[in-house]
Amino acid sequence: MPVIERVEVRDIRFPTSATLDGSDAMNPDGDYSAAYVVLHTGDPELCGYGLTFTLGRGTELCVTAAEYLAENLVGLEVDGMVGRLGSIYREVLVDSQLRWLGPDKGVVHLAKAAVMNAVWDLVARRERKPVWRLICDMTPEELVAACDFRYLEDVLTQDEAIDMLTALSPTREERVAELLRDGYPAYTTSPGWLGYDDDKLRRLCEEAVADGWDHVKLKVGRSLDEDRRRCAIAREALGQDRVLMLDANQVWGVREAITWVNELRSFDPLWIEEPTSPDDVLGHREIRRHVAPVGVATGEHAENKVIFKQLLQAEAIDFCQIDSCRLASINEIVPVMLMAAKFGIPVCPHAGGVGLCEYVQHLSVIDYVCISGSLAGRMTEFVDHLHEHFVDPVVIQRGRYVTPTAVGYSIRMRDESIGTYSYPDGAYWRGSSDGVAASPEARGHVARSLG
Amino acid sequence: MPVIERVEVRDIRFPTSATLDGSDAMNPDGDYSAAYVVLHTGDPELCGYGLTFTLGRGTELCVTAAEYLAENLVGLEVDGMVGRLGSIYREVLVDSQLRWLGPDKGVVHLAKAAVMNAVWDLVARRERKPVWRLICDMTPEELVAACDFRYLEDVLTQDEAIDMLTALSPTREERVAELLRDGYPAYTTSPGWLGYDDDKLRRLCEEAVADGWDHVKLKVGRSLDEDRRRCAIAREALGQDRVLMLDANQVWGVREAITWVNELRSFDPLWIEEPTSPDDVLGHREIRRHVAPVGVATGEHAENKVIFKQLLQAEAIDFCQIDSCRLASINEIVPVMLMAAKFGIPVCPHAGGVGLCEYVQHLSVIDYVCISGSLAGRMTEFVDHLHEHFVDPVVIQRGRYVTPTAVGYSIRMRDESIGTYSYPDGAYWRGSSDGVAASPEARGHVARSLG
Repeated sequence: MPVIERVEVRDIRFPTSATLDGSDAMNPDGDYSAAYVVLHTGDPELCGYGLTFTLGRGTELCVTAAEYLAENLVGLEVDGMVGRLGSIYREVLVDSQLRWLGPDKGVVHLAKAAVMNAVWDLVARRERKPVWRLICDMTPEELVAACDFRYLEDVLTQDEAIDMLTALSPTREERVAELLRDGYPAYTTSPGWLGYDDDKLRRLCEEAVADGWDHVKLKVGRSLDEDRRRCAIAREALGQDRVLMLDANQVWGVREAITWVNELRSFDPLWIEEPTSPDDVLGHREIRRHVAPVGVATGEHAENKVIFKQLLQAEAIDFCQIDSCRLASINEIVPVMLMAAKFGIPVCPHAGGVGLCEYVQHLSVIDYVCISGSLAGRMTEFVDHLHEHFVDPVVIQRGRYVTPTAVGYSIRMRDESIGTYSYPDGAYWRGSSDGVAASPEARGHVARSLG
Repeated sequence: MPVIERVEVRDIRFPTSATLDGSDAMNPDGDYSAAYVVLHTGDPELCGYGLTFTLGRGTELCVTAAEYLAENLVGLEVDGMVGRLGSIYREVLVDSQLRWLGPDKGVVHLAKAAVMNAVWDLVARRERKPVWRLICDMTPEELVAACDFRYLEDVLTQDEAIDMLTALSPTREERVAELLRDGYPAYTTSPGWLGYDDDKLRRLCEEAVADGWDHVKLKVGRSLDEDRRRCAIAREALGQDRVLMLDANQVWGVREAITWVNELRSFDPLWIEEPTSPDDVLGHREIRRHVAPVGVATGEHAENKVIFKQLLQAEAIDFCQIDSCRLASINEIVPVMLMAAKFGIPVCPHAGGVGLCEYVQHLSVIDYVCISGSLAGRMTEFVDHLHEHFVDPVVIQRGRYVTPTAVGYSIRMRDESIGTYSYPDGAYWRGSSDGVAASPEARGHVARSLG
């Protein structure tokens, strides 16, 4: 009977700021990073792996918080965990003193995501299943018991959730077979980073078309002239039949967003993503009312399920972009996907960063098979960065995610990558010639706000 | 010309969990703590002091984040800072990589509050004024320039803010004279902690009445029977003419809150505070509609000004409870007070903890003198804990805050207190006989959720 004996949390940082991969109007120079959790059991062949995604500086805050929370798992028997996922989330990984630092948001919540993601991975590995399969094999009652519905019951009760899941249970295996055959629809953000020049943007858009992508997302929001020029380039490369999405990464106020998006309407974007503060539910509602038929999408910074509840209640969004590491793992994500289904809003998970694509491929399967039963309007973000660091990286074919079959949550990193990019002691950071990025003194470095 | 030469951030923890001071339905065992910032200048007589309030475990997360942010102040000349408070807030204390960990919420935002509070303290000390006086001496344009209006302009533009401040400018000194003479109205939470037994509750309520308090707040939410009994005790001790407020510390869902509060309506509470998740703007609106004439109060966990904007827009609250350390200092608090004034909602600052009373006495003066011009429905929380650790502690007379006259923001801690309660190396924590609270191994201790 394996038991969680020891917890290891690593600070892993990739020097992506050197190439401006991932550059947008709010995040000009991120170093894609992770607080990476390993739950060690007595069995050396059985560990649980999880991470939360970060942007470089401050990753060690999430590491410290994850260490706090994960210590409470030491001594738990792995075999009983599949039936205790709800109480682990709601009771074991709760600390009334740490709660003040959120609650349910920011560093501590990101850390909880890393730890709980590792728990789901561990349970799935023990059961010899991919995480999506583990969940598709749960009864509606088991899945609801694993979730956290606190503060949601005015919009979705547990009984309603069971009813929704039960309605789709008889046909689950048909959808599983479909996804194993066809994969899940995706879109790419790889061409459109704000730090890329026009030639690179054009070339990458053309390559995306050649690779079979029908949906491409572009970063906007630095200057309106630039956005017009970049949208024209992208639209020309994509043609009129492919779909263009725009992402402003929160740079605008509400009124500014409305004006700016309407200036770009002629490029026929499907959605404007993160037009303003992620906390501004009513602001998103106002924007949505004034930029239609352009849709409003948000969620990668929606701090917890209560924000999603309100975005849906207020009819503030057209696309629900859950994040696998900002929401505290499947226990919180499944309730959000259930609420989205109830309101008829498609879930289009946020991905990219490091490891997020590996995670969301599971979440999209769960959504289709168990929760929404529909692919209409659904697609999962894909960005072609950093997959080489994972033991079981995502596979994309002709613009679709190939459904993963390896056990677990697909997030185990390669030992070599951990050795190289551990911060600050990994080989890259000790030896890098990039002084600013590499030195611990980079802690003091401040990138000025663009605002 | 003094310059900020060095930054010191301390982890200070007071073992309040030993006495259940501060116990409520969500926080059964907090150790009132602080990440305490000292900005050292070349002049040994001139430092800036600031803190953010925490509950014990995790304080070091705020310490680390405050160190990150405050390092960016090193080298700044003190004499120029009074005209640069806005750019320090919006540009110097911004880090695009740390931003991912919020944004503008949680650990990083709490840390920003500590650092920016220290900046305001330093500037006021240099000008030889209390912080409230420093601000009352600013022109409307200067004060607006010091603030952050990002994401607010759909509700309050900077021009409107200047107009509001200008309208009250000619009469500022009348209100200053009034407050110097009479003090600012306050209420006490000291009698009502949930960990106190009935006899202690009754005795403390009677003492509060004897000390001249007209407004007393009680913690509720653990059990309805218990709440009925405790409310009856408090109401009997207070009589019908004094005011009772209730505080549930977020334990309820929306529907549960409505039912529970209506069960307590016969005790005639002025407000129910934090009835549900602090993130649930629409939930507060729903509760408010169904518990009137009991008012709804919230704010101590409202993560930033965008949440307050929505609470006001949605007509979700009757009382606006800003927190001096969760909002990132005066730069963010003044815009919230301006919005509250525009919507006609009284600001009743949250206090207690450690140092919060010292801070909010300044904020209430600023609100009355510069922003609202009214005392109607206004009162500032007071809790009689831990004031002995400050060099310039608050003074209360007959249920009112005596307007502070010492220079700065009143938050400098006594050297002896720092030496005793620094964690984990202070004399108390090294020598305490309270093993659980005192040992660094307490990190692993988890208080189970009540939910």
